[in-house]
Amino acid sequence: MVAVGVIRSDADLSTDLRLLRIAEGLDRWLDEHVPDVVAVERVFAQHNVGTVMGTAQAAGLAMVAAARRNVPVALHTPSEVKAAVTGSGRADKAQVTTMITRILDLEEAPRPADAADALALAVCHLWRPAGALQGGDRHELTPAQRAWAAAEQAAKQRPRR
Amino acid sequence: MVAVGVIRSDADLSTDLRLLRIAEGLDRWLDEHVPDVVAVERVFAQHNVGTVMGTAQAAGLAMVAAARRNVPVALHTPSEVKAAVTGSGRADKAQVTTMITRILDLEEAPRPADAADALALAVCHLWRPAGALQGGDRHELTPAQRAWAAAEQAAKQRPRR
Repeated sequence: MVAVGVIRSDADLSTDLRLLRIAEGLDRWLDEHVPDVVAVERVFAQHNVGTVMGTAQAAGLAMVAAARRNVPVALHTPSEVKAAVTGSGRADKAQVTTMITRILDLEEAPRPADAADALALAVCHLWRPAGALQGGDRHELTPAQRAWAAAEQAAKQRPRR
Repeated sequence: MVAVGVIRSDADLSTDLRLLRIAEGLDRWLDEHVPDVVAVERVFAQHNVGTVMGTAQAAGLAMVAAARRNVPVALHTPSEVKAAVTGSGRADKAQVTTMITRILDLEEAPRPADAADALALAVCHLWRPAGALQGGDRHELTPAQRAWAAAEQAAKQRPRR
């Protein structure tokens, strides 16, 4: 772990300005850390109707910030992330926090819980780069990531035939 | 009407690259036309589960593109837009296209239907700038827009008391 953080926006601001704060924060993080890949939580319209639009919009901004820099983007579902770090796709937030603290050998649990979620997402992507990788020909994956992605994709498609 | 257009992205591209195309297209339109205000359709999580996430993300990109340029953003619901140009919040796409073609005195109907929707949204905002205006102190509205917005907000809040 190099760094972890949460971008906040004032709930009193209008939506456009809140999204702008997030976009600016993402730009700063990507420019400072120059990641090899950006993992983003895949959001589903069915869940949490009250917050899903804002979450989807923030995820979209993260994807665009990465794509502008030619950084590959991987999408992972919340249950994939939980399963990767706890062994169960239905683990709760406390379990995710406990496990990510152990896995990264941190002296204390990351705060807030969103920071623990972000670390779990990153670890999930490192361990299971998966067929969720986005970006097509523009993006350069490592041979190991490509092999993983191809195997995972093949495994997912087989049951459909 | 100065110009109308639809930004397209190849459905074969991954989501990050599709969103990037849209963000780049929005940047070009805003830089070329320097609008006084950007009107965006307000998207609801309840509707069209299959397409709502992409629509929300594209709307988020439009809001950020405007906010980066300090351009005020106004959100209008589809039924507000339909009501403004056709008189009925439940008008269909054909009625919206017919009315916007008449209102703007166009020689032929805007194509595709999304272009007609965009023009209807713009006309809706001009006629009913509404309390949906975003942007707080950073944005300069015209006195007429402010007066409209204040009156509309007051009218909406009254029944709650």
